[in-house]
Amino acid sequence: MGTDRAPVAEVAGAIGALRKLEPDIELVLVGDQAVVEAELANHPDAPRERLHLHHAPDRVTAADAPASALRRKPESSIVVGLKLVQSGDADAFVSAGSTGAVMATSLFTLRPLPGVDRPAVGTVLPTAGRPCLLLDAGANVDCKPQHLVQFAHLGNIYAQDLLGVERPRVALLNIGEEPEKGDELTVETHRLLAAEAGLDFIGNVEGRDIILGACDVVVADGFVGNVLLKFYESVAEFIIGLLKKELRQAGRDLDLEGVFRVLDYAEYGGAPLLGVGGISVICHGESSPRAIQNALGVAARAVRSNMVKHIARELASPEPSREA
Amino acid sequence: MGTDRAPVAEVAGAIGALRKLEPDIELVLVGDQAVVEAELANHPDAPRERLHLHHAPDRVTAADAPASALRRKPESSIVVGLKLVQSGDADAFVSAGSTGAVMATSLFTLRPLPGVDRPAVGTVLPTAGRPCLLLDAGANVDCKPQHLVQFAHLGNIYAQDLLGVERPRVALLNIGEEPEKGDELTVETHRLLAAEAGLDFIGNVEGRDIILGACDVVVADGFVGNVLLKFYESVAEFIIGLLKKELRQAGRDLDLEGVFRVLDYAEYGGAPLLGVGGISVICHGESSPRAIQNALGVAARAVRSNMVKHIARELASPEPSREA
Repeated sequence: MGTDRAPVAEVAGAIGALRKLEPDIELVLVGDQAVVEAELANHPDAPRERLHLHHAPDRVTAADAPASALRRKPESSIVVGLKLVQSGDADAFVSAGSTGAVMATSLFTLRPLPGVDRPAVGTVLPTAGRPCLLLDAGANVDCKPQHLVQFAHLGNIYAQDLLGVERPRVALLNIGEEPEKGDELTVETHRLLAAEAGLDFIGNVEGRDIILGACDVVVADGFVGNVLLKFYESVAEFIIGLLKKELRQAGRDLDLEGVFRVLDYAEYGGAPLLGVGGISVICHGESSPRAIQNALGVAARAVRSNMVKHIARELASPEPSREA
Repeated sequence: MGTDRAPVAEVAGAIGALRKLEPDIELVLVGDQAVVEAELANHPDAPRERLHLHHAPDRVTAADAPASALRRKPESSIVVGLKLVQSGDADAFVSAGSTGAVMATSLFTLRPLPGVDRPAVGTVLPTAGRPCLLLDAGANVDCKPQHLVQFAHLGNIYAQDLLGVERPRVALLNIGEEPEKGDELTVETHRLLAAEAGLDFIGNVEGRDIILGACDVVVADGFVGNVLLKFYESVAEFIIGLLKKELRQAGRDLDLEGVFRVLDYAEYGGAPLLGVGGISVICHGESSPRAIQNALGVAARAVRSNMVKHIARELASPEPSREA
């Protein structure tokens, strides 16, 4: 029930995932049963045998304090859905609802894994090379160096399990390449990461290196990560807007499909909260059906690859092993 | 002597500035006299009556520690040039040399103005609306809230004097619009800015708002500002690269001149170090002649508008006045 015109994108995305992406999973649509049924009626050919409904009459809105959802909206789709994961009745949760409420409720219900002080949101950025996982993309501000080291491990497992990178190149977002460059946080984090076992730490990267595909995982404080993520989205939109205007003025028509495909965040699905004891994937409020479909694909891959177990193993041991 | 193929761009940019931009200024080329003379020989029609040479045999290189230039390379073009400003023999200094060395030497020779704890680098970003001044773009990390408040005043004067904005909309870069959003630094800075006289503080902006033209000045810690700046440059390059590839594959030819013009940093010239007792403008090492030319234009406008005096007045008074 989370997108701006819920549950239109949710239902279409769910049906798309069952059809095109994941022929062997089942989905539970959590929301107001009557509303979801009505939307499903617009899809008479939906594979209903793999599409279940779970009633959740309430909704978390922008007016609700994120941390209060669990206590004050126990019948909301976010709380009900995450409790299905907590109880083992579902393997993963995907939502385009209030990011803050999904994060807070995921923390309360799925709990941080041992060795994870601050679960982080990981977002995949399109680059000139392989896609790059940025974390933390906004769950945590005022991070300490040891938090960023934990993010590096979380990202390392994500890149292995979900992006299929055998030995992910992990980098620290900084304002210079040299180890002594940066602010207090990054100088100390660089020192810790350089000594950390179980990671292919390639050192500092700058803003420009990300887009060139210099690394598979880039670690940052959630403040910096969030500013960067929102800026990326807007710069891409801005430049494409400029081009369209230019083309219109020139009376030219151009198919920008290829460019859009590369820049399309929907391609990579939602952003999982990494470091909690279950799969919880956060989507944009303005997600399209395809974005929902791909977020469900991310969730399914995370389940199949045993990502949570791998993270637990990587973070729990005092000397993280190199095995995925 | 600062660009990658110095002094080619410097000499061409200087001649361009004298011809096209500033018919009533004189320029002093500071560098190895023989080398500069040789390059000038390639421009037989240069307006030599307004183009002076000042010998500086040495160069600061990437191998030099930025803070040591003044002491260890006193005959370098950076040190000699800035001393001309310090002595009053020149009104402004422009360099595409080592950013760190220009900053450090500017601080030592021109000194921070009273009321300015940390001079900041201001960079103008192209947006969908009016250009937006971002500061600090990289001179200071681990800033305190009062530093960001000072940046706001520095940017306020820059936008008035150099961008011609009568009442600049000043914003704080943050990860949410609400005053309570952000990290420790931005929450406290927001509180101070909201109570600050002499500024049109419009509140928090997010990464995406900058590019939409939501503000004239955006204030950030130099770590965040530098990451953002480098990311902007690279995203623009990346997307234009994607488009060119797309067009080539489609066998289409398209004049992207208009888009490049909007995105062209050279358009806005260099980035001045704001808050010191003189004009010092920092350019990219890969500056084109046009970038140098426009940086000289920025320096000339800063001199003509009495920017340093305005900054001194705005920052020195305990209750900054609203007048420019």
